[in-house]
Amino acid sequence: MEFNRIGIVGLGLIGGSIGLDLQRLGYEVYGLTNRDQTAIRAKERGLAQFTSTNPNIIADCSIIILALPLPQLINPPQELIDALPQNAVITDVGSVKTPVIKAWQNLHPRFVGSHPMAGTIEQGVEAGRRDLFKNHPWISTPYNATDKDALKSINELAINLGSNWITTDPELHDQAVALISHLPVFISAALIQTVKNGSNNTLLKLTKAIASSGFADTTRVGGGNPQLGVAMASSNTSAILNALNSYRSEIDKLEVMIKENQWEQLKQELKETQSNRPDFLNQK
Amino acid sequence: MEFNRIGIVGLGLIGGSIGLDLQRLGYEVYGLTNRDQTAIRAKERGLAQFTSTNPNIIADCSIIILALPLPQLINPPQELIDALPQNAVITDVGSVKTPVIKAWQNLHPRFVGSHPMAGTIEQGVEAGRRDLFKNHPWISTPYNATDKDALKSINELAINLGSNWITTDPELHDQAVALISHLPVFISAALIQTVKNGSNNTLLKLTKAIASSGFADTTRVGGGNPQLGVAMASSNTSAILNALNSYRSEIDKLEVMIKENQWEQLKQELKETQSNRPDFLNQK
Repeated sequence: MEFNRIGIVGLGLIGGSIGLDLQRLGYEVYGLTNRDQTAIRAKERGLAQFTSTNPNIIADCSIIILALPLPQLINPPQELIDALPQNAVITDVGSVKTPVIKAWQNLHPRFVGSHPMAGTIEQGVEAGRRDLFKNHPWISTPYNATDKDALKSINELAINLGSNWITTDPELHDQAVALISHLPVFISAALIQTVKNGSNNTLLKLTKAIASSGFADTTRVGGGNPQLGVAMASSNTSAILNALNSYRSEIDKLEVMIKENQWEQLKQELKETQSNRPDFLNQK
Repeated sequence: MEFNRIGIVGLGLIGGSIGLDLQRLGYEVYGLTNRDQTAIRAKERGLAQFTSTNPNIIADCSIIILALPLPQLINPPQELIDALPQNAVITDVGSVKTPVIKAWQNLHPRFVGSHPMAGTIEQGVEAGRRDLFKNHPWISTPYNATDKDALKSINELAINLGSNWITTDPELHDQAVALISHLPVFISAALIQTVKNGSNNTLLKLTKAIASSGFADTTRVGGGNPQLGVAMASSNTSAILNALNSYRSEIDKLEVMIKENQWEQLKQELKETQSNRPDFLNQK
């Protein structure tokens, strides 16, 4: 096992971007992809020095980053598990942590749960780009059995990539992403459907003609990748259902104010949202 | 009454921007403001050639644009009504049309309901800027008694400002803006409140640290001007309540899919929202 060899499984947006940055930092990057074509293209794009579809490619790596979609992190193929050296540090990039950790805590002794947050929606081997993680959160979710040295390795790696390191427990992480990332997808999708399903042809035509930047912004995440939405919902179900419940109460509260013409209360409520929102805006 | 004299009542974002464009088109613009300081500043900024707080300033104008906030359009001050020449064409800029028309249909024989849509959130005498309406919708809502020649004058004016002219009836207009502009404000505000009210201190701190561009976009209109939100709700109440009702059904539909693990249906639903959203994105 060589200290400066890092393996990346999956060279899409996250894996490819990590590969680009790590090479600049002097590491040797070994990329494992599931298709020959992707391995060739990833090498052409310089996402890793070495790429292959053969799991042996990661055999001598000291750190291995599983940059795979959530379903594959939760149900990893046996071939991948078998290929991971027992003394390497393993981390993932999954946006939901409880089920990933549940899967991996018995699969590898040096697994560390990670969620590097990134700001673009592109996907695939063409998506990776430099400095994707700079000034973005890299959340790690250690649990009791987490190897302290392994955690320290991932901490150093995240800092080297320019991330803001955050540690929290897996359940709290999943509640936070349910509120901040997952709930917005569903409330935004519901808005698109409301206009589409709640309008006759004349009204629909008019709404399309007059929809402005406010509608575009509010619906952006609801018009995103359906697979990603399903992955969120199926892997973070209870936290999302709780968030939807709280959300419905807030909608009900506003509706009562409007129905009962409580304009002073509504103004107070909207003053609160106006003053609260900036706390959630980071320079990211 | 001089044909090329146009009066603008209120020189905020909308009124000021119309003033700038009209002068470039060769019109003489007479601005009526409610404060001396605003009249002076509006003149300094060149929003109108002539400005005053004295309603007589608009006495010889052939077209008068009431660029006032919705509450003042719905309950116009008597002094303003008295100052409007009977043979001038009068239009407004209100974002809700039924109550404005209800107020004005008996107040002036040549009133035409208008809703020029603009894309910025700035306000006040510093906000006006050139070409604000270019390629944006200018919706007019004629009713049976609307003077055809008056409507034609406003049509020409809107076209001269580069707007996309749309006519529809007032009720349909109000339903469309309820769905496209007003509903987003309340569902977006409810999202901010859900995170704020549904989190203990530790969770709230984490959500603030990890909130990304998706959350920022989805909450933008919910963090806007409280007065504007109240004006929407109080002047377009029934259309907004209908929209909220439809919205709740869509939330319920998604919740059932998530609760019952109907991942295939959820994927279909999110595929629909993904493919429907681009219809509402215009080059504006």
